[in-house]
Amino acid sequence: MSRRSVRTERRLFLADGPKAVEGALSVEGCVVEVFATPAALEHHATLLTGADVTLVDDRALASLSDSVSPAGVVAVCRHLDAPLQHVVTASPRLLAICADVRDPGNAGTVIRTADAAGADAVVLAGQSVDPYNPKTVRATVGSLFHLPFAIAPDPAAAVRAAQARGLTVLAADGGGEDDLFDVDLSGPTAWLFGNEAWGLPDELAALADHRVAIPIHGRAESLNLSTAAAVCLYASARAQRSSR
Amino acid sequence: MSRRSVRTERRLFLADGPKAVEGALSVEGCVVEVFATPAALEHHATLLTGADVTLVDDRALASLSDSVSPAGVVAVCRHLDAPLQHVVTASPRLLAICADVRDPGNAGTVIRTADAAGADAVVLAGQSVDPYNPKTVRATVGSLFHLPFAIAPDPAAAVRAAQARGLTVLAADGGGEDDLFDVDLSGPTAWLFGNEAWGLPDELAALADHRVAIPIHGRAESLNLSTAAAVCLYASARAQRSSR
Repeated sequence: MSRRSVRTERRLFLADGPKAVEGALSVEGCVVEVFATPAALEHHATLLTGADVTLVDDRALASLSDSVSPAGVVAVCRHLDAPLQHVVTASPRLLAICADVRDPGNAGTVIRTADAAGADAVVLAGQSVDPYNPKTVRATVGSLFHLPFAIAPDPAAAVRAAQARGLTVLAADGGGEDDLFDVDLSGPTAWLFGNEAWGLPDELAALADHRVAIPIHGRAESLNLSTAAAVCLYASARAQRSSR
Repeated sequence: MSRRSVRTERRLFLADGPKAVEGALSVEGCVVEVFATPAALEHHATLLTGADVTLVDDRALASLSDSVSPAGVVAVCRHLDAPLQHVVTASPRLLAICADVRDPGNAGTVIRTADAAGADAVVLAGQSVDPYNPKTVRATVGSLFHLPFAIAPDPAAAVRAAQARGLTVLAADGGGEDDLFDVDLSGPTAWLFGNEAWGLPDELAALADHRVAIPIHGRAESLNLSTAAAVCLYASARAQRSSR
């Protein structure tokens, strides 16, 4: 379950640990099978009530889990991503598009933060990391099961799909011409975030309606991807809340 | 250099890689010695101009570096932390106090983000991670060398010192009674951030002037520490900028 090819072919992935299993069980039809150690079954009895649990020993559980200290309960789950057109045609007011976000922890944190900020969906575009990577699933802390998301090979197509639905696409770009706190964020918005090392390719940033920089007041050169995404998404959340 | 006891005893630490070495060289009196491979010396000639560099081979460099792929240049540096009273008595307008922040990457990211948001200093209080941990230094991406910081064993003393200087202390607390976007952030403020797993102890949060929650709009339960800190610090930066 830990190799992408296997996960992709079978369209299955692993929810590892009680928080992820709880999220998976909350989505109808998502869970194929739950495995737990006797100790974990006892400890998480409430969580696992009604679930069809296969008991396994610690060693078998550890062989399933990617974690260095497995929590004793995992669920084999069906993939949850929706087609790009589905997450965009649902008239979102706030969308996050990740283009070539490669670090599993960053991608998971963006999904978690987008959920917290009230975004309607996340699009993992281009060469972005597999959202079903165990590290990504863990970093979402359950939000992978709450928030609609799409996998889109072509970031430009994702940008155009958002624009076609009336969303203003804002590229988060340290060299952008607009200051985050001067931009009108009250309307339907899609944020476009780039790779953690090299940012957004020029030709992709050029497709956005505006290129927006978070003001840097001190001597830091930049923010890291997941903190930058948090600042942008919450600036939108705040503006959209006060405009309603 | 990678064990805390050794680093603490000698009050020395390692700046690893060109970005960190550049930061260290920008601080007068910080660098004790620079080690570089011949290839790195050539590649980073501009950066190392005027520095006293000891040439070492790849193997010796690798034994100094904590990184899995060393960049070929490291600097042995003197500790940079200032006493708590110094960072507080400089009349800061924006301060970040970390109480028991244990993850090196999180602590480094908070320092980097505080720098970007224009904070005057960071206090690493209580059982917070050693700021000279190689992972922390790396995560600050140079900000460890730009931004004043203090190490304070007692978080309560740090809170009281900030209050004594007229700073309003805001505890970032998911269960806090005030909404981040309803609080007046225009005055001098110290943010208090707690441990990534269990947050702030009640008695410490009670010392703060207000307990402030970032509103959660979706189904996520919380934000992670470094993204929460980014949202709080940038909310302050924005309010302070517009009040000037």
